[in-house]
Amino acid sequence: MSEVLTKGKLAKAASFHMIGKTTAEKNDALEKIASQLIRDKVELIKENAKDLELGKQKGLSTSILDRILLDENRIEAMADAIRLLIELKDPIGEQLELIEKDNGLRIEKKRVPIGVIGMIYEARPNVTIDAATLSIKTGNAVILRGSSSAKWSNIALVSSIQKALALTTLPIESVQLIEDTSHETANELFHLNQYLDVLIPRGGKGLIDKVVQESTVPVLETGAGNCHVFVDASADYDMAERIILNGKTQRPSVCNATESLLLQKDWFSTYGEQLLIALQQKGIDIIGDQNVCAVNSNAKLATADDWAEEYLALTLSVKLVEDVIEAVEHINTYGTNHSEVIVTENKEHAAIFLQGVDAAAVYHNASTRFTDGFEFGYGAEIGISTQKLHARGPMGLQALTSTKYTITGEGQIRE
Amino acid sequence: MSEVLTKGKLAKAASFHMIGKTTAEKNDALEKIASQLIRDKVELIKENAKDLELGKQKGLSTSILDRILLDENRIEAMADAIRLLIELKDPIGEQLELIEKDNGLRIEKKRVPIGVIGMIYEARPNVTIDAATLSIKTGNAVILRGSSSAKWSNIALVSSIQKALALTTLPIESVQLIEDTSHETANELFHLNQYLDVLIPRGGKGLIDKVVQESTVPVLETGAGNCHVFVDASADYDMAERIILNGKTQRPSVCNATESLLLQKDWFSTYGEQLLIALQQKGIDIIGDQNVCAVNSNAKLATADDWAEEYLALTLSVKLVEDVIEAVEHINTYGTNHSEVIVTENKEHAAIFLQGVDAAAVYHNASTRFTDGFEFGYGAEIGISTQKLHARGPMGLQALTSTKYTITGEGQIRE
Repeated sequence: MSEVLTKGKLAKAASFHMIGKTTAEKNDALEKIASQLIRDKVELIKENAKDLELGKQKGLSTSILDRILLDENRIEAMADAIRLLIELKDPIGEQLELIEKDNGLRIEKKRVPIGVIGMIYEARPNVTIDAATLSIKTGNAVILRGSSSAKWSNIALVSSIQKALALTTLPIESVQLIEDTSHETANELFHLNQYLDVLIPRGGKGLIDKVVQESTVPVLETGAGNCHVFVDASADYDMAERIILNGKTQRPSVCNATESLLLQKDWFSTYGEQLLIALQQKGIDIIGDQNVCAVNSNAKLATADDWAEEYLALTLSVKLVEDVIEAVEHINTYGTNHSEVIVTENKEHAAIFLQGVDAAAVYHNASTRFTDGFEFGYGAEIGISTQKLHARGPMGLQALTSTKYTITGEGQIRE
Repeated sequence: MSEVLTKGKLAKAASFHMIGKTTAEKNDALEKIASQLIRDKVELIKENAKDLELGKQKGLSTSILDRILLDENRIEAMADAIRLLIELKDPIGEQLELIEKDNGLRIEKKRVPIGVIGMIYEARPNVTIDAATLSIKTGNAVILRGSSSAKWSNIALVSSIQKALALTTLPIESVQLIEDTSHETANELFHLNQYLDVLIPRGGKGLIDKVVQESTVPVLETGAGNCHVFVDASADYDMAERIILNGKTQRPSVCNATESLLLQKDWFSTYGEQLLIALQQKGIDIIGDQNVCAVNSNAKLATADDWAEEYLALTLSVKLVEDVIEAVEHINTYGTNHSEVIVTENKEHAAIFLQGVDAAAVYHNASTRFTDGFEFGYGAEIGISTQKLHARGPMGLQALTSTKYTITGEGQIRE
């Protein structure tokens, strides 16, 4: 049997053993994992060094090497994050509905674990810890399939986790790593419907699209973000500039960064030149439509592809629109259903925008950067869902749960 | 452009027009559809006769021809069902969360339509009306792809619906039928991720498995049911017999019918013979393990395949088990996560079963037949989900909704 099949089967069995584990048992396991990571610090850093060395040989960029890096601070941060997770409310067992029927049947709908979660991700060893600990907190078993560039780090991290689990009432196989990082193992996971209840991709658009397009296991799509700011006719200049700069520059490489700017044409006549210069002074490259390029010689002319682009860099596409209706239509055509903003003093226009834009999070007078599980107060984040089923927007612990009806009677039959 | 692509694009556009339609507008459309069906009765019956005639020529079974049949009573029943749907609470707009942050941001999570629903189904014209009207009530656009055996009926029904929609504020393209019932159109729908937000198969296991295995559009799996009754050592004989007979015989062809019986071995020693005879007297064929066949010469010996079989007929597999633990393990191995029953007077065993069995609906002392949107009090049913994401168990109107965060601020940015 292949590694994926073997571990899939073990994960399914482990998921049954996870059912009914108490909050105390799960938190105890999390605490033991946190301590184990600290205890294994030297070993983890040693194994991580192999990945960094191999990465340098392969010529990985400094920013990717930085993502892979584990040092004392980062390992301590992992342990701290686990201790915060311990404090969070356990969603399992929560009663969602109670229906008492005339025939005496008592129908209860409760939150239960999903079962087995598959996680496919890129070169970030911290996702290994995140995914493992969030799965444990929600009573799930997890199969991790990371990137080859973090292979030795991931093996070491999962070894620490399993050492800790061995000291608990939880099955060791509730957290397993697929060590073979070839394409074949990803493909096997895409079709492991027998053992996997859900597959979650974490990484760039290429990875996510591949999983969505190929997986027959249900996918929780944590998506790319081509996030727009629409500046309406009545927008306050200072507020608009502040929101755009924050969305574009605070952390350009993340999915909730602002990628595209729509400016109402009359507002543009008054403030356009000033705004473009302010953005360029902060190092932002402007890719504009003809109107934009006409007033700003440093702007590059946009192609049709630019309206759909997620730059993940200090680049911003800028386009003029007639009004809020055109802005909504443009966003619904080119957007990725992530985070969209209107800056306006006009409440009617705000209402049209908030209702009409088809996205997980739609803002009136605030930055796209707020779409985040921690900012929303969920205390944890699995990712930001841009699909419409199961979970949409920042996903906290609840997104890793399912529901179950339990019905008690005294011999009732259906007439 | 193909029929599927053309209609997909129109459906997407229609779905945007559906956003923000009021409950009154949607109910008005439903009322007009109900009246139009009654007005078009003669025409509908005439077109339906073509399908019946073609079906007879193809040699379809009487039971399938009966499913296809539209007569005055059935058309009136459709109109009545629509009027009941009008009375149901509109789920759209419901506030699910309100988070007020220290920085003044007001984060609201609300129910919104999903967008475009694709429905693939077999020879039941009533699903055409069901799917269309439930989609309208929840503010979605729908693309219907029925079976070739009900082609003329479906064309006539959708024509009536669109005539009615033309008299309303709703877009006509919110309900569209794919008239080409070749395999190609199904395959196109499986990969229409650009325009479809969800695909719902309604029909037999073959159809559902095909959609789950091939579709890259997210699927709401309305599943097959290999439903078990486990009779524990302490079970009351009369209650056990009543629950088994109801589950098996009340409507054998549906997914919540009982298909498999697990008997605790000591209970079997006392009551087994009596029970098997009682079941056979009601016309039930018994497929049993060796112990069962040893005491009942009319029972046929089961093969391993029988434990996984959904008979949808007056056939029941029967197996002895040691205890509730073995029953739970057997069900988690061979079941389809639908509806599972324990009959017992032992509360501890009931608790083990209710928690340990991995299924949408788990019963203590009641019939599997209760798993149903109407029985649960939802007033409508899209189907019964056996998957774990988005919706599990009987799906009412809420299953056809998504959520959206709208966030209002006064210029907040992330620090």
